[in-house]
Amino acid sequence: MSQTAKRLAELGVVLPKAAAPVANYAPFVRTSGMAPSALPQLWVSGQLPLGPDGKLDERHKGKLGPESSADVAREAAERCAINILAQAQAALGDLDKIVRVIRLGGFFNVASSFDALPQAMNGASDLMAHVLGERGRHARTTVGVAHLPMNALAEVEAVFEISF
Amino acid sequence: MSQTAKRLAELGVVLPKAAAPVANYAPFVRTSGMAPSALPQLWVSGQLPLGPDGKLDERHKGKLGPESSADVAREAAERCAINILAQAQAALGDLDKIVRVIRLGGFFNVASSFDALPQAMNGASDLMAHVLGERGRHARTTVGVAHLPMNALAEVEAVFEISF
Amino acid sequence: MSQTAKRLAELGVVLPKAAAPVANYAPFVRTSGMAPSALPQLWVSGQLPLGPDGKLDERHKGKLGPESSADVAREAAERCAINILAQAQAALGDLDKIVRVIRLGGFFNVASSFDALPQAMNGASDLMAHVLGERGRHARTTVGVAHLPMNALAEVEAVFEISF
Repeated sequence: MSQTAKRLAELGVVLPKAAAPVANYAPFVRTSGMAPSALPQLWVSGQLPLGPDGKLDERHKGKLGPESSADVAREAAERCAINILAQAQAALGDLDKIVRVIRLGGFFNVASSFDALPQAMNGASDLMAHVLGERGRHARTTVGVAHLPMNALAEVEAVFEISF
Repeated sequence: MSQTAKRLAELGVVLPKAAAPVANYAPFVRTSGMAPSALPQLWVSGQLPLGPDGKLDERHKGKLGPESSADVAREAAERCAINILAQAQAALGDLDKIVRVIRLGGFFNVASSFDALPQAMNGASDLMAHVLGERGRHARTTVGVAHLPMNALAEVEAVFEISF
Repeated sequence: MSQTAKRLAELGVVLPKAAAPVANYAPFVRTSGMAPSALPQLWVSGQLPLGPDGKLDERHKGKLGPESSADVAREAAERCAINILAQAQAALGDLDKIVRVIRLGGFFNVASSFDALPQAMNGASDLMAHVLGERGRHARTTVGVAHLPMNALAEVEAVFEISF
């Protein structure tokens, strides 16, 4: 029995079965950090759902509420993910240098309740999975926030592990 | 005098005494990155306060306001931390492989003001400290957000440094 | 043509020109991770805009709304950045050991809409650029949240790459 397992038992903490993710993301991601060298990371700034013209479509502005369309929110998150890949392309020259997506952080502009947060974030997670396959599986955190730059519907940030 | 200290002086920026943390967390965490190899990191997705049955108790749903119980919010954060350890257990097989908790990010579902955010987050920080001792001291960020998946009261994410 | 480029083409995903940052931050940051060793990281807890006396000025409390001053919010973010450097100083002894700022995460306490989120966050980004020069260019994410500890106007967290 490991020391930490003993300590958990002493504290009476029983670990549940780890919850399985219900979408194209991973409950955890382990970076390689293989000796004799660790791979570098690429940290991408929060990206807004700007379109190919660099502008924010009116549909991807404003606050999500109980009556908002999960589809539009999902589309906005996908757009953020495309813009993340555009930044990675600019950084790396070749997206094959992505070893894996470590983490996506998803922020949605929410008025009050919006029950489809996970489905909306799937727009970003699915894009990564579709483009990068196994390399696209990532840890993620999804939250609803009170406001976003340009009153955008969504903002997504990313950390990648990349090859030299 | 270091170059950066000179620059601070030129800019007239006076650094205050670094504020001490008022709970079981650290103001900063330095990863080892020891030559000739850096240790890997384990990034855990945002965890909700799901109970041992994998369900979200009604008490751990909804929004925190001026009249909300700090105890229930604290309990929800502790539950998130237990679920983080469950993910780490699934990832590592043995929690002794945790070298240290690098960072916890705590998100609380807040209606308007809720003054007990730090106390609530202590539910997660204290759990890590109690289970992992010195290895459990972490950097942390605590914010109140507008909504969370499943209308959960809290969501906590984590980054660990782990051994090979 | 790289494998990932082929996959993007198959999916019909066209990457836009990567958006340029409009302030003193970088769209992405690549950590060095140079063989035979990776540099360590310093993760700093979310810092509030506490003044040199360790107290929160009334001006740096409360919620930002449509009529709020972008200048005060900017000043609060700068104060958070100064406190981040104070923590780095405490951690490293010498700020010359900062190789680069990897990422700043900015959280602002927002009532409803507050259009000047990016300008406010520039208070933190500019401080890093002014003090650290090229080493101060960082990836960043800026969001408006529903509440912050001590009802502070802003909270900023940081990850640095540091030398041994």
